[in-house]
Amino acid sequence: MLDFCKCSCVTLLTTADEPESHILCDLNEPLVDHTEGQLFLNDTFKIIMEEVLCKGTDIKHKVCEWKEPKELALLLDLELRATGEPQHRLLQRVQDVAKYSIKTSHPRFMNQQFGGVDYHALAGRFLTEALNTNLYTYEVAPVFVLMEAEVLRGLRQLVGWTEGDGLFCPGGSASNMYAMNIARYQHFPEVKSQGLCGLPRLNIFTSSDSHYSVKKGAAFLGIGTDNVIIAPSARRLCSFSVSVYQGAVPFFVSCTSGTTVRGAFDPLDLIADVCEKHKLWMHVDAAWGGSVLFSKQHSHLLKGVYRANSVSWNPHKMLVAGLQCSALLLQDTTDLLRKCHSANATYLFQQDKFYDLNLDVGDKSVQCSRKVDCLKLWLMWKAVGSIGFAERVDKAFNQARYLVEQMKKREGFHLLQEPEFVNVCFWFIPPSMRGKEGMVAPVIKERMMKQGTMMVGYQPLGNKVNFFRMVVFSPLLTQKDMDFFLDEIERLGKDL
Amino acid sequence: MLDFCKCSCVTLLTTADEPESHILCDLNEPLVDHTEGQLFLNDTFKIIMEEVLCKGTDIKHKVCEWKEPKELALLLDLELRATGEPQHRLLQRVQDVAKYSIKTSHPRFMNQQFGGVDYHALAGRFLTEALNTNLYTYEVAPVFVLMEAEVLRGLRQLVGWTEGDGLFCPGGSASNMYAMNIARYQHFPEVKSQGLCGLPRLNIFTSSDSHYSVKKGAAFLGIGTDNVIIAPSARRLCSFSVSVYQGAVPFFVSCTSGTTVRGAFDPLDLIADVCEKHKLWMHVDAAWGGSVLFSKQHSHLLKGVYRANSVSWNPHKMLVAGLQCSALLLQDTTDLLRKCHSANATYLFQQDKFYDLNLDVGDKSVQCSRKVDCLKLWLMWKAVGSIGFAERVDKAFNQARYLVEQMKKREGFHLLQEPEFVNVCFWFIPPSMRGKEGMVAPVIKERMMKQGTMMVGYQPLGNKVNFFRMVVFSPLLTQKDMDFFLDEIERLGKDL
Repeated sequence: MLDFCKCSCVTLLTTADEPESHILCDLNEPLVDHTEGQLFLNDTFKIIMEEVLCKGTDIKHKVCEWKEPKELALLLDLELRATGEPQHRLLQRVQDVAKYSIKTSHPRFMNQQFGGVDYHALAGRFLTEALNTNLYTYEVAPVFVLMEAEVLRGLRQLVGWTEGDGLFCPGGSASNMYAMNIARYQHFPEVKSQGLCGLPRLNIFTSSDSHYSVKKGAAFLGIGTDNVIIAPSARRLCSFSVSVYQGAVPFFVSCTSGTTVRGAFDPLDLIADVCEKHKLWMHVDAAWGGSVLFSKQHSHLLKGVYRANSVSWNPHKMLVAGLQCSALLLQDTTDLLRKCHSANATYLFQQDKFYDLNLDVGDKSVQCSRKVDCLKLWLMWKAVGSIGFAERVDKAFNQARYLVEQMKKREGFHLLQEPEFVNVCFWFIPPSMRGKEGMVAPVIKERMMKQGTMMVGYQPLGNKVNFFRMVVFSPLLTQKDMDFFLDEIERLGKDL
Repeated sequence: MLDFCKCSCVTLLTTADEPESHILCDLNEPLVDHTEGQLFLNDTFKIIMEEVLCKGTDIKHKVCEWKEPKELALLLDLELRATGEPQHRLLQRVQDVAKYSIKTSHPRFMNQQFGGVDYHALAGRFLTEALNTNLYTYEVAPVFVLMEAEVLRGLRQLVGWTEGDGLFCPGGSASNMYAMNIARYQHFPEVKSQGLCGLPRLNIFTSSDSHYSVKKGAAFLGIGTDNVIIAPSARRLCSFSVSVYQGAVPFFVSCTSGTTVRGAFDPLDLIADVCEKHKLWMHVDAAWGGSVLFSKQHSHLLKGVYRANSVSWNPHKMLVAGLQCSALLLQDTTDLLRKCHSANATYLFQQDKFYDLNLDVGDKSVQCSRKVDCLKLWLMWKAVGSIGFAERVDKAFNQARYLVEQMKKREGFHLLQEPEFVNVCFWFIPPSMRGKEGMVAPVIKERMMKQGTMMVGYQPLGNKVNFFRMVVFSPLLTQKDMDFFLDEIERLGKDL
């Protein structure tokens, strides 16, 4: 029963007997049946509520319903065919997709930095999808042009800037790439029209724990991965001789606030001194750690961030805004972003519009179509306030500390290091596996996936063999989940 | 009343009297209230149904509730504050966002190529948002890794390829940029590590009507906009002397199937001959026109597309899949995409996983987090079948023809040209405005926005002054909407 709407929707008339009138009749009716469509959407919403948001966040249910790829492909019947299917069959498909997908909102999904759920953010995401607009002109996105500006202003304020610029980008890698491109343009404005040909070789500096997007970005932008100079540690980044490096021109330093694996924070103030001295663009990849700025207790980890030229910050990670929500923030007030990226397409950015053309923000982006990523964060921020975000951050630190304390009380657990942030990196080594430490994590991981009880990531790093990385940030996590986590690692690894 | 779920959710206990136990207690409870959150989501869904999908698609309601930016900012109360707000206030905000946003699903939103709504696609989008996963490993996106491969296979099949590769990208501009980067890598594999420094100057060829993302991409990739050689017409693109152009090395030709403004199709077979002769990468930007491949009647417009090396195709345009859904398709079977973009991050793409590592597709992308863009298209395809898509395409052509015929019967309407596709470009010139043709469209546009009756775009192009561009493709459109469109242009412009 659907009582949302009183639209009058007429089903398509068939006119087999009157071939001549067929086209006219066809053109007189829409090809979408609103009543049937809205009923389907309503039924899908019920499945989402039940399977994804109720069962999917309930510790009595699995995180993962593991299937081998071939078996899963058969179960899903993925093939695309000439004819359509009836609604009940399609609803079964919705059910199947939900069933076999990973429950990333589940408290025991700790595999990556996007777990958990915030219902206000999710409501904002549904609304964004339904409104289906493009964040490039005020004309088609009046609410979101203004809202994005306000959200970016709020984030910049936490960085310590009263002015500046910015944009939401499709992920932290894109934000980092944007920063690189703008820095390059600031140093060599001619690069936009003439390209790198004729320019000296450019160098980017970063530390070994920085995100792989620095290298990906350097490759994509034509700078080359060999021209990313990797300091062995964040501190060494400061003492690098950056003035001339084998004839290349350094222009960009990418610091990290919250490294992906260890959750380490680069000493921003020290790096800022070097950048100022050598006139280098200082970028802070705070995709993971930026949200710490909400917490009075922990924001010191990013001390000096206001001295950066640009900051990447992904509220889809610690703030649980939902994929994707990645802000590129700039201190610049000279319209560098637009100058660097604009193409002045006349079909979108007409110069004789009747409103302020500065509201057409689309030409700041290298995308044309750009999704609305601000609403989910804005609505969640309105719902919990900056204080609510601070509470979540502080709780995550406390939760991580609790986990570390418990871990120290148990046999077989060995911390990689005392955590600086909410990444808890550790080995679990049953007595039988001494000397074969690196082989433990993949086996335990396979078992946990197949049993579906939880998900956590592992990796080697430098000369360290495979260790687990627990990321403690979801607002859904309780102490019981921490205890369960440790029990479960023990249970899965005990007979190794 | 919420009966979806029987989760037991406990509200956060306050322990003001017991400061010592505060942290422990806090850590024992989640910071998200599922019951309250799900109730909010349910209420938001009702607002979406009523405001966005019922009223928002009903011709008795406005497309646009125009407000001046300052007034709108006040109405929305955008400011982000320290404390959160009660649920009823937040629901009012959801209502406001819906009210003042453009109704892009409305049959009379003809401003861009993303109007209309398909309920199955929208259901897929809601499910995607709720499942909130990342399309980089089989581990976290088992269903979507398999589904994306199947959808890409289906699209490639229409291009005429039985094998190949591909990826969904955040928009057509990104897809075009990817193609450029892969082509560059194929010609000069050393560019990934060494960058462009030391390489000869590179040239890209395209025609003057191609999308601005070709230039944006060239700037971003370090090639430079001056190195994009613009042929004055698509046919001239074929006769260009591409062998040596002022010492530069040409490597990439970007053809267009369905130009943004005029909806023109480049002669792909002729260009393919040139590309084959000169060993150039042939890319087809079919972001707009690709969907024509579903139609037996009209697919000849892309004749020769199978000879391309890469194709960009945005089902979020003509197929109404919803923003964003942009496929990059490659004929390549040598894993170029992965080789060109991979960084082999060990924390994501562990080499000792227990399943086939080829299923971890994330390293084909320059993004790290990548949204799931395949589900909406897959579900819609299952719902209507390839035949249903063909019907939509054919209907759009017929509808555009009807519009043109009606236009010719009326005074004051002047076609820019006979449409090749569903873009109908025209001037409307009341007698009083003869000699001032370019001033008509901005005035009519302002009036229609402020009255909110419909939305259509206009632009100048080359030496042509401002003309309207109607894009006829939404499955919601009827003949009545076409008649209304013409009446409304006349009404809004009659007293000029």
